Amino acid sequence: MKRIGILTSGGDAPGMNAAVRAVARTAMDNGLEVFGIRYGFAGLVAGDIFPLDSEDVAHKINTPGTFLYTARYPEFANEEGQLAGIAQLKKHGIDAVVVIGGDGSYHGALALTRRGFNSIGLPGTIDNDIPYTEATIGYDTACMTAMDAIDKIRDTASSHHRVFIVNVMGRNCGDIAMRVGVACGADAIVIPEKPYDVKEIADRLKAAQERGKDHGLVVVAEGVMTAEEFMAELKKYGDFDARANVLGHMQRGGTPTVSDRVLATKLGNAAVHLLLEGKGGLAVGMEHGEVTAHDILDLFENTHKGDYSLLKLNSEVSK
Amino acid sequence: MKRIGILTSGGDAPGMNAAVRAVARTAMDNGLEVFGIRYGFAGLVAGDIFPLDSEDVAHKINTPGTFLYTARYPEFANEEGQLAGIAQLKKHGIDAVVVIGGDGSYHGALALTRRGFNSIGLPGTIDNDIPYTEATIGYDTACMTAMDAIDKIRDTASSHHRVFIVNVMGRNCGDIAMRVGVACGADAIVIPEKPYDVKEIADRLKAAQERGKDHGLVVVAEGVMTAEEFMAELKKYGDFDARANVLGHMQRGGTPTVSDRVLATKLGNAAVHLLLEGKGGLAVGMEHGEVTAHDILDLFENTHKGDYSLLKLNSEVSK
Amino acid sequence: MKRIGILTSGGDAPGMNAAVRAVARTAMDNGLEVFGIRYGFAGLVAGDIFPLDSEDVAHKINTPGTFLYTARYPEFANEEGQLAGIAQLKKHGIDAVVVIGGDGSYHGALALTRRGFNSIGLPGTIDNDIPYTEATIGYDTACMTAMDAIDKIRDTASSHHRVFIVNVMGRNCGDIAMRVGVACGADAIVIPEKPYDVKEIADRLKAAQERGKDHGLVVVAEGVMTAEEFMAELKKYGDFDARANVLGHMQRGGTPTVSDRVLATKLGNAAVHLLLEGKGGLAVGMEHGEVTAHDILDLFENTHKGDYSLLKLNSEVSK
Amino acid sequence: MKRIGILTSGGDAPGMNAAVRAVARTAMDNGLEVFGIRYGFAGLVAGDIFPLDSEDVAHKINTPGTFLYTARYPEFANEEGQLAGIAQLKKHGIDAVVVIGGDGSYHGALALTRRGFNSIGLPGTIDNDIPYTEATIGYDTACMTAMDAIDKIRDTASSHHRVFIVNVMGRNCGDIAMRVGVACGADAIVIPEKPYDVKEIADRLKAAQERGKDHGLVVVAEGVMTAEEFMAELKKYGDFDARANVLGHMQRGGTPTVSDRVLATKLGNAAVHLLLEGKGGLAVGMEHGEVTAHDILDLFENTHKGDYSLLKLNSEVSK
Repeated sequence: MKRIGILTSGGDAPGMNAAVRAVARTAMDNGLEVFGIRYGFAGLVAGDIFPLDSEDVAHKINTPGTFLYTARYPEFANEEGQLAGIAQLKKHGIDAVVVIGGDGSYHGALALTRRGFNSIGLPGTIDNDIPYTEATIGYDTACMTAMDAIDKIRDTASSHHRVFIVNVMGRNCGDIAMRVGVACGADAIVIPEKPYDVKEIADRLKAAQERGKDHGLVVVAEGVMTAEEFMAELKKYGDFDARANVLGHMQRGGTPTVSDRVLATKLGNAAVHLLLEGKGGLAVGMEHGEVTAHDILDLFENTHKGDYSLLKLNSEVSK
Repeated sequence: MKRIGILTSGGDAPGMNAAVRAVARTAMDNGLEVFGIRYGFAGLVAGDIFPLDSEDVAHKINTPGTFLYTARYPEFANEEGQLAGIAQLKKHGIDAVVVIGGDGSYHGALALTRRGFNSIGLPGTIDNDIPYTEATIGYDTACMTAMDAIDKIRDTASSHHRVFIVNVMGRNCGDIAMRVGVACGADAIVIPEKPYDVKEIADRLKAAQERGKDHGLVVVAEGVMTAEEFMAELKKYGDFDARANVLGHMQRGGTPTVSDRVLATKLGNAAVHLLLEGKGGLAVGMEHGEVTAHDILDLFENTHKGDYSLLKLNSEVSK
Repeated sequence: MKRIGILTSGGDAPGMNAAVRAVARTAMDNGLEVFGIRYGFAGLVAGDIFPLDSEDVAHKINTPGTFLYTARYPEFANEEGQLAGIAQLKKHGIDAVVVIGGDGSYHGALALTRRGFNSIGLPGTIDNDIPYTEATIGYDTACMTAMDAIDKIRDTASSHHRVFIVNVMGRNCGDIAMRVGVACGADAIVIPEKPYDVKEIADRLKAAQERGKDHGLVVVAEGVMTAEEFMAELKKYGDFDARANVLGHMQRGGTPTVSDRVLATKLGNAAVHLLLEGKGGLAVGMEHGEVTAHDILDLFENTHKGDYSLLKLNSEVSK
Repeated sequence: MKRIGILTSGGDAPGMNAAVRAVARTAMDNGLEVFGIRYGFAGLVAGDIFPLDSEDVAHKINTPGTFLYTARYPEFANEEGQLAGIAQLKKHGIDAVVVIGGDGSYHGALALTRRGFNSIGLPGTIDNDIPYTEATIGYDTACMTAMDAIDKIRDTASSHHRVFIVNVMGRNCGDIAMRVGVACGADAIVIPEKPYDVKEIADRLKAAQERGKDHGLVVVAEGVMTAEEFMAELKKYGDFDARANVLGHMQRGGTPTVSDRVLATKLGNAAVHLLLEGKGGLAVGMEHGEVTAHDILDLFENTHKGDYSLLKLNSEVSK
């Protein structure tokens, strides 16, 4: 192996650049040439490929977003797209690829491996919805951004004795909602994976008010319903002075946290070492504090399981 | 004068606590006793009044929200409310009042003065919509919060080559939108006070894309329309990959900036000195870097004028 | 068991308040009465003990420092101090104690347990130097604070093509230095536990300059030597345009991160459940993502081991 | 005039990039070609000059430091240096130059103007020590960075009931110390321009402790003495549990605040319009909220005057 390519795919996540840097620097440190591929699999197919040197990834460990850009490209599920991508890899003499992104990225990495180009997938998504890793790159930063915003919302909630319903990101996965909900002392946390009872939440908020609590907070993962909709539900059970807020896309931005930078660096470094060992078709993650690698196929057969004990924990400490 | 009262009124704003601290400490330093009044004019009428000592306002210069709480209380426009409030002031031996808040607060301060209780109004609102002051307490912090959030949104906009429409606060006043729009390099800024042309904005965004710009940003004051609505307007003129975000109530929270803390301290300090001089019915503000005081009546006859030159400036530098 | 006491001891750490809240709320949720003890073991002996209710710990999950205050009190190592503390516990009818702090705190907790008052120790220190826990409460926040500061230092280093030597906290433990060093892309990380070679570091910095890198960064744990001293060493091997910075006590402050809030909440909650089960003399920590409890004696027989693989990792990716 | 050059000089300051962007974009909007000059006057003489297009200054409004780099170059005070610089300007067909920096930058701008190349100086320095402008580019950001750090230091000071002596930047100018001191509720502020009395400060700290204040804070501009030295002075007058901290170079970094971005944009824009009017040898600043321009010679004959009323104000409110 002499040349490797790197691309980012799917939704962007803070720390993707740190991962690209770690891949590039580790590869260079081991005598490889490195190529960046812009716009994910779309750019691979289009041949938007350029050489990276050490200084190209300088000052990238702390920059948000992805300087390789990203794009969704469902066409890469088809043979035609894959063959076109491989033609580009051959043209540039690239032997192996590291793909950083979410679920779709792993399908692409597997397809490339099966066609003879060892590829490793790294979990880059704020949602934390990937199995075989206790955290995805970007998850901690997204939680921090959401927490900071909700801390600010709580300030004004308390000044006015209001209840706030806040949507955080998470279509199918309540991990951001749970961790941020605990961190912000939410009265209730509502996630897509678990049932919830609006009346019970309303009663909880009322009991808190009666106890003298100067604000109320319900954190709702966006996959459940909008904050507006939840507020309407809630008002069926009480005359709350409530407001709805949607945190939105800022949760995808910002300089990565220490955790995300270290995680991205460890995983990016490990991916190159696996490729150097001639391995491919693997999903790299962090489990029990150790970097691990699993067959991408295993990953498709499993689903991420959140730390649902946080719901019970929160229920005990937020009264 | 032996005793003064302090209250916060209307929407909360970062720096209100710093202003309360400055009023309290200055008063104490000049031998006065100080009373906090909770929940604005509502609390005044209800008698929610308590003595403040120096340590009660310790660690308050940097805390967000208002520890005196706030409430809207339109009933204070009526004689009945005013008389009830005055009865409470007499009961506690309070001779004068400092009111921190927005437009409604000044009406209350004027009413109290006319009934024999000198009162001074301080501009405490994030909207910057008060005449005779170049900045209101909370405005700079709200701008910083909005800017930080939009910086993060821009990260993800750039990764995906998207256009974002972002609502910032400002029902009648575009000051947050203008200052934040310039600070974030917005392609366009849309405010309630000035006409705008959606087609022109769409053309501008298209020209930017053609020039190779990797993102688009339109900052829209909430008083104009929702970001969602503006996006629909925009899409009539082009097939933009656009997203709408509403920053929401977090703009009211957060620890105040240096500017807001210093402004609040200067104005709070000045208010007490004016009361000590036997003056009342005044609105205190900052003009050309100096603390000034105007008759509250003058303030009602004027309207705040924004720095609309920022629109032309932004138009020149965002291409 | 009807009443429990809580105290914080040793150096303060962000998240201590979140832990106190979790202990208090969990205890209340299980029908216990809760008492705060101010100024650590000094306050215990002095009887600075007061009842806590649910609202007393409201708005504490995000506040830095410790609202129970802390103090160093070596006298609690003596029988006399312990007996005086126990007399106070009896006087207030307190049956068990949760102690949040560093090494000294565990000795106090063990002493209380041996004298019949079950006590649980929680790891509250920014240094991460406690065995049987992958992170201490405050460690992640301190790393974030240090990282943010070094990110800023790097900005000016790059503008001037300078080398910065930065001291981070850590007398005997290089964990902050290692994690922050990796996160900030340091050219070299110097910690107390491992040998280092100044000439090699100088050569590395020179090679980076020759490659065109626009800044240099060496992160030095304060336990090794001062940044000033290290800079003098470094200049023996080259004519560097270098500056020395000591980050200092700000690393102990700031609102806790998501990680620290969640960790503090989990550990505080678990401590109460252990006490409810009649257990004491235990050190609670987080291992492999699970809350665990060990005999405090085991903890004294072990030493914390840092993740020294970070040094090699950093060496590979910072070239 | 067809082509203008831009350079940054002296110590870097947050907002320099925003100013460069504003100059470049305004020039382009008015049909000019724009050249960046790296490393200040050193790079001018060396011919490190390159064309800038609109996208080269994209994403620069929020980036810290200066992407044009900076260097100190006293040789530009000599005729030889000036003639060499002018030869480079001629070679690149550049007709006028905008210089962003501190005192030395204005001397360079004046020299260029006198030799036939109209030049405008913009105040880019964190120190706020330039006459004819109420704020320099970078000053507000430096104050925010210092304030955030001191807020964190205060957290730990309060947990331990300690006194902190903190050095902020400012060799000859106490503006950062004064504004940050007021914003952080310092017990005392010590600046180079005014006498101070250590015994009085010690008495003040003791009185605060006796009143029950849980921390003490003295902000000392670095031009007075080191925090260590001040602490030694202070301890002559009392047995304080004190710590000394030097905030250091991080005060030069970080993304610029709203104020600095808007200020930089206004001044950069105005500089180009002045050049288009055929003017040179001017120092552009912000006075009473309006952009003004003065002869650089006037600037040399005046000295910046700080807002020393902040000292008295702080003395009244920090008790």
